[in-house]
Amino acid sequence: MEQWSNERLSRQIAFITEIDKLKTVLRHSYLMDGSRRENTAEHSWHVSVIAMALLEHAGDPAPDLNRVIKLLLLHDLVEIDAGDTFAYDDKGYADKEERENAAARRLFGILPDDQRDEWLALWREFEDGVTIESRYAAALDRLHPVIHNYYTGGVSWKKNGIVRAQVIRRLDPLRTVSEPLWHFALDMLERAVALGLLLDDEAAE
Amino acid sequence: MEQWSNERLSRQIAFITEIDKLKTVLRHSYLMDGSRRENTAEHSWHVSVIAMALLEHAGDPAPDLNRVIKLLLLHDLVEIDAGDTFAYDDKGYADKEERENAAARRLFGILPDDQRDEWLALWREFEDGVTIESRYAAALDRLHPVIHNYYTGGVSWKKNGIVRAQVIRRLDPLRTVSEPLWHFALDMLERAVALGLLLDDEAAE
Repeated sequence: MEQWSNERLSRQIAFITEIDKLKTVLRHSYLMDGSRRENTAEHSWHVSVIAMALLEHAGDPAPDLNRVIKLLLLHDLVEIDAGDTFAYDDKGYADKEERENAAARRLFGILPDDQRDEWLALWREFEDGVTIESRYAAALDRLHPVIHNYYTGGVSWKKNGIVRAQVIRRLDPLRTVSEPLWHFALDMLERAVALGLLLDDEAAE
Repeated sequence: MEQWSNERLSRQIAFITEIDKLKTVLRHSYLMDGSRRENTAEHSWHVSVIAMALLEHAGDPAPDLNRVIKLLLLHDLVEIDAGDTFAYDDKGYADKEERENAAARRLFGILPDDQRDEWLALWREFEDGVTIESRYAAALDRLHPVIHNYYTGGVSWKKNGIVRAQVIRRLDPLRTVSEPLWHFALDMLERAVALGLLLDDEAAE
């Protein structure tokens, strides 16, 4: 670790440079112009802005948007070590928690101790999904790739043979978070099936 | 614009899909692993996290971090229409304001009217640079590419024949925002010159 004027700043700069790697972690979603796969850093930006844009649909009491954004900016940093686990990869999910816990300890451990504790707590809050902020954040994190898939002609759904019931299961956190957004998502999936972007459930039987 | 359950949501979804284009706007900075140029969406994410990490250096009174992050998440959206203007491109700066104003009106105009007004105001706050939040945000926005350049062996500085005095002029907003970060930046530039990553001022004379 390169030393700067003091130990705290040296750790903060080391953390800032380390997390640059999130820009090289590729997700299964494509950019909406279909040109390439999305990376996790730009996803984190996008879903944070989405949280700002859709807050009014988040129910009553409204989540604290500022906290939501912090959760979303940090929630995927662990993918630097643990990689992106595809939403429909049951095998990948088996040891996801363990891999991501180790990643969180290493990455946030670069920061000064008080920041490490604070940021680890934010990351755990997102993972635990108990607070209304983490539930709204996680629901949007699930909705985001659905919008991408819809507007890229279902490229990732088709490639992986995904059927509507799988997407609906995956979206379940949205159901209790926001009635309007849940209905919007079901409507989008209905249109996706009608347009041939997503397999209907019967196709899988 | 595709119509969903109501006009507000249709506009919000149209905005969310439109801003995906920020992921295709390339900056002059490179990823720290040198593999490719950074895009503006991932920059917006990174500088938002940097604002969280370095807040303690922002002086007294401390800026409202939540507002800072909102400014940073939105400040570069206009580049979707106006493109990224290289920091040292005097010609590009001549009509930058005009191009970006038109872009802001078009992009935020996709949102419902009340959100359009609110988000346009946030964008203008960043541009005007009067509040302590916008001054801290803008200073970090200037510092971010310096850190990238330093850790990529000065690739963008070298390519464009940039000298230290130009970088220092560009970083000037940092000077009054944070003494520790200003000294850190000067220290980093001193090391960059010593390492041959950045031309010393005399080289340009």
